[in-house]
Amino acid sequence: MSSRDTQRRIKQAATKLFNDYGTSKISTNTIAEYCEISKGNLHYHFKNKQEIIKAIYADIATEIESDWSDDESQPTVSHMAEMHARQLELIWRYRFFYREMAALAKADPELADSIQLNREKRINILVRFFEKLIETGVLKKPRSKESLRYMVVMTWIFTDNWLNFMELQGNEDREEVAQLGYDMIIEILYPYLTDKATREIYDSYDALRQRLGD
Amino acid sequence: MSSRDTQRRIKQAATKLFNDYGTSKISTNTIAEYCEISKGNLHYHFKNKQEIIKAIYADIATEIESDWSDDESQPTVSHMAEMHARQLELIWRYRFFYREMAALAKADPELADSIQLNREKRINILVRFFEKLIETGVLKKPRSKESLRYMVVMTWIFTDNWLNFMELQGNEDREEVAQLGYDMIIEILYPYLTDKATREIYDSYDALRQRLGD
Repeated sequence: MSSRDTQRRIKQAATKLFNDYGTSKISTNTIAEYCEISKGNLHYHFKNKQEIIKAIYADIATEIESDWSDDESQPTVSHMAEMHARQLELIWRYRFFYREMAALAKADPELADSIQLNREKRINILVRFFEKLIETGVLKKPRSKESLRYMVVMTWIFTDNWLNFMELQGNEDREEVAQLGYDMIIEILYPYLTDKATREIYDSYDALRQRLGD
Repeated sequence: MSSRDTQRRIKQAATKLFNDYGTSKISTNTIAEYCEISKGNLHYHFKNKQEIIKAIYADIATEIESDWSDDESQPTVSHMAEMHARQLELIWRYRFFYREMAALAKADPELADSIQLNREKRINILVRFFEKLIETGVLKKPRSKESLRYMVVMTWIFTDNWLNFMELQGNEDREEVAQLGYDMIIEILYPYLTDKATREIYDSYDALRQRLGD
């Protein structure tokens, strides 16, 4: 098996185990056992657990950077719904990371910097996406440019933590979680929706469900 | 020293150490050392670290239950600002808990149930608080009762995670964090503010600062 394949297997196993038990309960030995490779082999690829977590986050960041960069060119309500489904789907796959993000970042300043940098980039893209929604007459202009950024940050924090909130409530039905989360975002945007947007919302729920069914 | 005093000292030391280093890096031995008590004495009071965490959460819940139950009787914008400052101040004191809440809850179903129960109670109180703001002409009626609950849940998730968001950004100035958080909540409420509310907002920032200065 190539080095890259082994690394991928280690990251996949770690993600599965971290999702199920939390990072603090899982040792590199457990991960090696789960992969059916030797401890030495694992440590050849990753010095310690922290390095595995960082490599997993790098994958998250790469996925976001490469697949999500085109959002601005599709300023529609349906694309917004798809973005929401896509985000929740990513959070679901890496839910340990979103569950523990604040603590992981606190324990590792390098990881914190990297999260912070990617977050800033994405928030800027989202602000521009919403500016395009305003330009194309889907959203009404909020009172200031600041307002728009605040709403983006608010929905960002909401989305990042929505699965955690629902998990605690015992509801882990992916489709339900995504739909209810979308309902809430629509609610916050509601005062800013134009007639054009209102007509598009019904279709956007189809787009959301379709994306979730993928 | 009375048993209750010892327990309080243990909880205080644990909170300080958890805030600074995270729960996974701190053992009960470290806590005992920090308190200058024997390991045996600590274990007489708390079987393990999980029991200390649960006792700390019980204190958080008691503080919320006993001091915050009267919110509905003060339906003003200034009181809303005070509620926000009060919440962030509590999160600041127990920031390890808000940083790790999702993971701690996942690791301990009993703790999860207790968080969930208290959260439901508080969200209901907040919904009634906002209903009072509508009744007294401070807020305009949103399109449905559901809408109001959604906005409460959204701002709830935002507030619980706002310090984490700012901490990751390297901003831990308590007053700044609280003010910017309040700005964002006002922004979400903005479309629902009546003229009466707009007049009260300026004063509410004074109330916020006063409460933070306490």
